[in-house]
Amino acid sequence: MITVAEAEEIIQDNKGDFGKEIVLFNQAAGRILAETIKTDRDLPPYNRITVDGIAVSYQAFASGIRSFRIKATQAAGDEPVDTEAPDECIEVMTGAALPATLDTVIRYEDIEIKDGIATILTDNITQGESIHYKGADRKEGDVVAIPGQVISPAVISLITSVGETEVRVKKTPRVVVISSGDELVPVDKTPTEYQVRQSNSFTVQAALKLQGVNADVLHVPDDVEKITGHLQQCLHAYDAIILTGGISMGKFDYIPQVLKNLEVEQLFHKVQQRPGKPFWFGRHEGGSFVFAFPGNPVAVFLCMQRYFLPWLHTSMDMPEKPPVYAMLDNDLEFKPDLQYFLQVKLLVNEQAQVTAIPLNGNGSGDFSNLADADAFMELPAEKTLFKKGEVYRVYLISSIT
Amino acid sequence: MITVAEAEEIIQDNKGDFGKEIVLFNQAAGRILAETIKTDRDLPPYNRITVDGIAVSYQAFASGIRSFRIKATQAAGDEPVDTEAPDECIEVMTGAALPATLDTVIRYEDIEIKDGIATILTDNITQGESIHYKGADRKEGDVVAIPGQVISPAVISLITSVGETEVRVKKTPRVVVISSGDELVPVDKTPTEYQVRQSNSFTVQAALKLQGVNADVLHVPDDVEKITGHLQQCLHAYDAIILTGGISMGKFDYIPQVLKNLEVEQLFHKVQQRPGKPFWFGRHEGGSFVFAFPGNPVAVFLCMQRYFLPWLHTSMDMPEKPPVYAMLDNDLEFKPDLQYFLQVKLLVNEQAQVTAIPLNGNGSGDFSNLADADAFMELPAEKTLFKKGEVYRVYLISSIT
Repeated sequence: MITVAEAEEIIQDNKGDFGKEIVLFNQAAGRILAETIKTDRDLPPYNRITVDGIAVSYQAFASGIRSFRIKATQAAGDEPVDTEAPDECIEVMTGAALPATLDTVIRYEDIEIKDGIATILTDNITQGESIHYKGADRKEGDVVAIPGQVISPAVISLITSVGETEVRVKKTPRVVVISSGDELVPVDKTPTEYQVRQSNSFTVQAALKLQGVNADVLHVPDDVEKITGHLQQCLHAYDAIILTGGISMGKFDYIPQVLKNLEVEQLFHKVQQRPGKPFWFGRHEGGSFVFAFPGNPVAVFLCMQRYFLPWLHTSMDMPEKPPVYAMLDNDLEFKPDLQYFLQVKLLVNEQAQVTAIPLNGNGSGDFSNLADADAFMELPAEKTLFKKGEVYRVYLISSIT
Repeated sequence: MITVAEAEEIIQDNKGDFGKEIVLFNQAAGRILAETIKTDRDLPPYNRITVDGIAVSYQAFASGIRSFRIKATQAAGDEPVDTEAPDECIEVMTGAALPATLDTVIRYEDIEIKDGIATILTDNITQGESIHYKGADRKEGDVVAIPGQVISPAVISLITSVGETEVRVKKTPRVVVISSGDELVPVDKTPTEYQVRQSNSFTVQAALKLQGVNADVLHVPDDVEKITGHLQQCLHAYDAIILTGGISMGKFDYIPQVLKNLEVEQLFHKVQQRPGKPFWFGRHEGGSFVFAFPGNPVAVFLCMQRYFLPWLHTSMDMPEKPPVYAMLDNDLEFKPDLQYFLQVKLLVNEQAQVTAIPLNGNGSGDFSNLADADAFMELPAEKTLFKKGEVYRVYLISSIT
């Protein structure tokens, strides 16, 4: 049985590559960038006026002139108009370009305009004020976004500003989620007292949808031939197969054997963790990856968050996220020699400290608190007692914030 | 000019109501729940076995019996099989129901099976072990999800487990994003030296897409008649109108006057903040809300995050998010009597403390660092100097984590 850290390392060493494609800029939000975005000109592209008011020569102001003749009005987008005399000014709007003969802008609040003459009402003027200078933010050719970056709304702002109408993005993988287990009935069927409804595959499908991946869903019975047939097809049709159930020590846990028969190389089976100990991971020579999780809902959920999504992100060349730590808010005991993933709710107090409130859970089968969990706290296998105030690493549950 | 807190209060007092609709459970991820979800039976629904192994009577074990005849094998989903003699056991698989005559489960790792006899290899057995009891997590009729909750993958797990094939969700609002300003050219056009490309509306559109809202985008020229015509139509066709630009003191800032002419009630104009001071908010008697933001990209972005998205969430009956605080990592000075929203990158250190690293920005016009920002830190208007180590509230930028 390998450790969580070993499992993570093996998975990260086996990243996928799903290729690239080009999408229109207004379809790109949420995708992963596969090219470098550079500015096509300085930002701002000209000396940009940041208020509505008048542009004057500071030297003229300093020499005592307070009333300026308005030579012209200049809107954003207009060619700048030059002045000829020191007591001339240009009435300028936010976003307009600074005329070459002028160097200081005074906002409407500090002037009075009458009969085409603007009079400055304050002495508190600084040379160069209210101007955002050409190239102050970025120079032409500067890199503003890089491959692996999520195309967030802010990245859309950059992409559109530099005129990229089409964007090269990472393709998302073709994923199928396969549940197994004869005790499972479809969601719209009433289970007998001893059956349960299929829910794992839809939970996984929803988690993938949040990542922009549209996964297919399939259920297979506990029947070696049928499992074999379905898996054989899926190994050819998908980049990744997520299985739930059928990998433990039970008599009907056929999955590992079937995968072996289909020449999927087992990279590990069983991880020193709770939930999710029976987790099986492998790779098919055709290029497809198999993540086989045990059937209990919390294990599936944890394995998705802790292993599959980081693998997906690495495969899309996304940078590793900085670690997050939280302070345990309760004492607790966990005896088995397993790394325990505790469901926690996170709060940030007024000392800016992240506290983790454990959610009551009866081990790996209890999924009824999962909707309240913000993260899993990773409690080291070598310890048994965990004290309020101790700090451990947490893994945030993917969501829309 | 009102304060940020006052603006927030006015907006929160004017929440919208976009109605409800029914969607299939596998289309519901990311939507907002508009009904209460209750369990249709206990969770677990029966005394659920949590390992693969044998079920025995603890009394029989305590009386010294170590070898048990395997009467039957019981898979998950099977009717439980009762035993008749103390030295009988049932071979059981994870997820199977505990037979009524038995009370303890011993995993394969601790037994040996030969010729239909299972022999227990350990004395370390606890009565009731490896059983997840009926109703331990939830009782039939317990509430597991409530209106206003985001339908996260964990909620999908609950919904499917209780057999809800259709889910009542909040409708998303019909939103149009309207940019104005004659200096703006379409993304695919090359601007002159003094023009810039339309980017604000696509940034807003992308931010809304992350919230599951598909917004339309429109550009209007600086022309009173055209603005009037477009806005008149939009006030009837949309629940919310987001405008960018045209609301400041400039000569071509026609928007507030046009909105007044169209009988949109102004609820406020100008907020004591940077960026975004000229922000205008109003409500049309037809029920449509108007958020008019100034044209600079950072102001638009901030106003979306700080005002529009919280309004959207309140309108969808989502609960208020707990506040988040962070510790400033640098000294900084901000003189104007405005609440300053500082772009920051957040990190959580190994003491579980959230630190906020200010991103260099040249005031409200600089959007080139926005893609690196995790949050805006809200620096109080009444202070001028902000010291490293001081803690302030931060507003997380909505994203997929």
